[in-house]
Amino acid sequence: MTPAVDHPHRPHAEAAAAAAAAAAERAQLLDEATEEIYNSIFRPGSVKINVKGAFIVDPDTSTPAAAARAQPNGQASPTHHETSDIRLPNHTAVVSHIAVDIGGSLIKLVYFSREVHSTDSGGRLNFQIFETDRIDDCVEFMKHLRDNQLELNGSQPGELCVMATGGGAYKFYDKIRDALGVDVLREDEMECLIIGLDFFITEIPREVFTYSETDPMHFVSPRERIYPYLLVNIGSGVSILKVDGPRSYQRVGGTSLGGGTLWGLLSLLTGARNFDDMLEAAGHGDNANVDMLVGDIYGADYGKIGLKSTTIASSFGKVFKEKNRVDAAVRRGARLGGNGNGNGNGNSSATEQTAAGEESESSSSVKLAFDECDISRSLLYAVSNNIGQIAYLQSQIHNVSDIYFGGSFIRGHRQTMNTLSYGLKFWSKGEKQAYFLRHEGYLGAVGAFLRRQPKNWGRRNSLEGLDEILELRRSLKANKESSSQAVATTTTTTTRTAAD
Amino acid sequence: MTPAVDHPHRPHAEAAAAAAAAAAERAQLLDEATEEIYNSIFRPGSVKINVKGAFIVDPDTSTPAAAARAQPNGQASPTHHETSDIRLPNHTAVVSHIAVDIGGSLIKLVYFSREVHSTDSGGRLNFQIFETDRIDDCVEFMKHLRDNQLELNGSQPGELCVMATGGGAYKFYDKIRDALGVDVLREDEMECLIIGLDFFITEIPREVFTYSETDPMHFVSPRERIYPYLLVNIGSGVSILKVDGPRSYQRVGGTSLGGGTLWGLLSLLTGARNFDDMLEAAGHGDNANVDMLVGDIYGADYGKIGLKSTTIASSFGKVFKEKNRVDAAVRRGARLGGNGNGNGNGNSSATEQTAAGEESESSSSVKLAFDECDISRSLLYAVSNNIGQIAYLQSQIHNVSDIYFGGSFIRGHRQTMNTLSYGLKFWSKGEKQAYFLRHEGYLGAVGAFLRRQPKNWGRRNSLEGLDEILELRRSLKANKESSSQAVATTTTTTTRTAAD
Repeated sequence: MTPAVDHPHRPHAEAAAAAAAAAAERAQLLDEATEEIYNSIFRPGSVKINVKGAFIVDPDTSTPAAAARAQPNGQASPTHHETSDIRLPNHTAVVSHIAVDIGGSLIKLVYFSREVHSTDSGGRLNFQIFETDRIDDCVEFMKHLRDNQLELNGSQPGELCVMATGGGAYKFYDKIRDALGVDVLREDEMECLIIGLDFFITEIPREVFTYSETDPMHFVSPRERIYPYLLVNIGSGVSILKVDGPRSYQRVGGTSLGGGTLWGLLSLLTGARNFDDMLEAAGHGDNANVDMLVGDIYGADYGKIGLKSTTIASSFGKVFKEKNRVDAAVRRGARLGGNGNGNGNGNSSATEQTAAGEESESSSSVKLAFDECDISRSLLYAVSNNIGQIAYLQSQIHNVSDIYFGGSFIRGHRQTMNTLSYGLKFWSKGEKQAYFLRHEGYLGAVGAFLRRQPKNWGRRNSLEGLDEILELRRSLKANKESSSQAVATTTTTTTRTAAD
Repeated sequence: MTPAVDHPHRPHAEAAAAAAAAAAERAQLLDEATEEIYNSIFRPGSVKINVKGAFIVDPDTSTPAAAARAQPNGQASPTHHETSDIRLPNHTAVVSHIAVDIGGSLIKLVYFSREVHSTDSGGRLNFQIFETDRIDDCVEFMKHLRDNQLELNGSQPGELCVMATGGGAYKFYDKIRDALGVDVLREDEMECLIIGLDFFITEIPREVFTYSETDPMHFVSPRERIYPYLLVNIGSGVSILKVDGPRSYQRVGGTSLGGGTLWGLLSLLTGARNFDDMLEAAGHGDNANVDMLVGDIYGADYGKIGLKSTTIASSFGKVFKEKNRVDAAVRRGARLGGNGNGNGNGNSSATEQTAAGEESESSSSVKLAFDECDISRSLLYAVSNNIGQIAYLQSQIHNVSDIYFGGSFIRGHRQTMNTLSYGLKFWSKGEKQAYFLRHEGYLGAVGAFLRRQPKNWGRRNSLEGLDEILELRRSLKANKESSSQAVATTTTTTTRTAAD
């Protein structure tokens, strides 16, 4: 095991001193204190990622990641969802770490690669996904990265270090460390989510967007003030975090009704073999065949309380009624004939088979057959609406208007985004805004990746160090009796130059 | 069609005058104004129900309702949930109406019957339930009640009037009116829920209770101050109402994930034929076989944010993983043999049949077979927890501590109540209290029933008229320049005596 080396070059304090010569002494003080924090808190040392000019690479560009995926051990998962790389044209330093976010269902992996096949300088962040159950494939892929470190990112074999977050960082800690023979550094899941999201919001152009059916995909430019916001991270389950500043956050809630619920129930109810099949099916379905609408109960709107006849009153509310109807018919049919044989049909729903197993052949006209597409759409609506509502209620309680939806559940799926976005707008009467991200599933992995680099590297202060600097300001003020105004100027300058 | 008659007897003002002779003139004024309100607003007239000494009758007591249920047309629904009658020992007047609350899945019916087989005076409120799809059975039952009005409640045939609420009051209005040949008066669903709940909270001893696994069923005595409270009414879907006073309420939210969702999904996923089968199955299940727990992801607690290893991270989160495992095995098995035949087994889950329809016989060891009981328990938890959480969030937003759970979803089921109660206590750190009711499913029906009786009949002012009286007080004060103190005394006296 080879601990990663500290990157020796720190343009940070030098640049600060140059830009604010008048505050040199204070900057020096600040730098020394900051360096101490580096050494005491962020062990082992850091690697600077230069994100200046970062942009998202068009998906069909040939990338080292694509080449890597073609490796037998790094083969794309059957549930792989293509994610664009992010190019970092100005980053030329060596990167000796990769990051993994190991969730309940999926492993998200992020690594840096130089542009070995290009004459350009810089390199790119690559994004890769595995099912958690295929952790061995993921480990093989990481071995491949380790063995190709020189070509990929300029570091020597043996220098790899793994930044791991998510529950699997604990559960699979020994497995990864032993298989790769490298240091595995575990980072808190929630903290990584926020670091990753702040990075995407602040540093990556054309990453964050709004979405609605009537007004699709609008990219949002980074704003000066991004806090407070709510992050609703939808993986197997859902976590909701309120974020007040770069390192100031709390998990305010969540729900167990997340992606795992949709995928789990649909794999019981339909023949779909993967997430994309399910989403595709939902796109063709009509939930009104499965859900009980207000109009089904009232025969019209329930205008007094503002419920339209098309509002879903009860998700899957028509199913039990239909079952009763079929059961009654089966009881009648049972007098006429014996039991039929269930004939499993690849295109039919499990429902139909259940009914078929119980009914007589003479009563085949009363089969309880719901369309798989209708079921898929109903469940997608149910889960998405529910998450949207809980997000709205939390945003009310915490008085927050900007809500970012992240996590691997969304997968850029239009109906999902529209449901979340529409619900939020409807409940808040237009006062809350839903935001989505192109790298929605990789917040935690990118956050873990970025944990290994110096403070204040971001161009727009998206990342760590702000809290510590504020704390330093307070102690400097108290100890040196220097004016807080001067220190604030210095700090700002330092922060800005450090990013360049 | 025979409009119901006004009940001529109004002890209300007389008693007020007797009890507060000094305020006779004001009481007279008040009475005249109140009478005007009767006539102008609550047309057609009212029937006084004397609830003094009301109590819940032990279920095994023979009742007219039980006798009625034995009628061919009034037979108990297969989903019938036994509900205790409420005895009104002091009510002797004629009652010429019945009430129905017609929801998306169930019809709840309430009617009064004299104690014809008893030497006691008074009578009782009877509770009956039908599936909404069996509306014809319900209409037959109502015809039976109509034809037996003399025996049941002293009114003459032809005097019946139906108070209807719920969506079906609109959807089935013509059907009921035409079949019975009587007046059908439609009442707003939300308003009836609140009137019914106020009645149960205020007038019926041993009706409201708290519940938790560690401290089961504690009855709650009626309190002087019951407002504000939240009503979470769980039928096919869920409505959440915030109530500030006897007629002051608003529907603050709801969710489509309600009883219809549980029943619908379980009827697709299991062989259960009715609600009670499903609840029974849930009682024997272990959701950890289906749900992804925090411990499944982390291998331990996620202590930093207070999540125990047993916390449900993702409802049904283990299912998709299992499906992938089975699919892989099926692909391997397919090389060995042909397709098997699905053999519908009454006790197996639909899942198992789906897998059976696709796998080769040689790979029968990899069947995707989840236990129906585990599935039932998981879904019961998912739906109950979700409702509990949304109720909690709404109670936070509206600053309310008392939360009543009503509706036919609960059915007195211990796991359901415990989940709702536990969740609320957990999230609120013990600051919010969940309340349940023995007649939980009949709030709307009882509310509709009570819409047809005079103001201020309740012993504890549970019902209508308070707002109007307060308004009267204000106008009396302004017009007559009498002291508000004296009027308040009169009003209080009037209100109290009116109930006796």
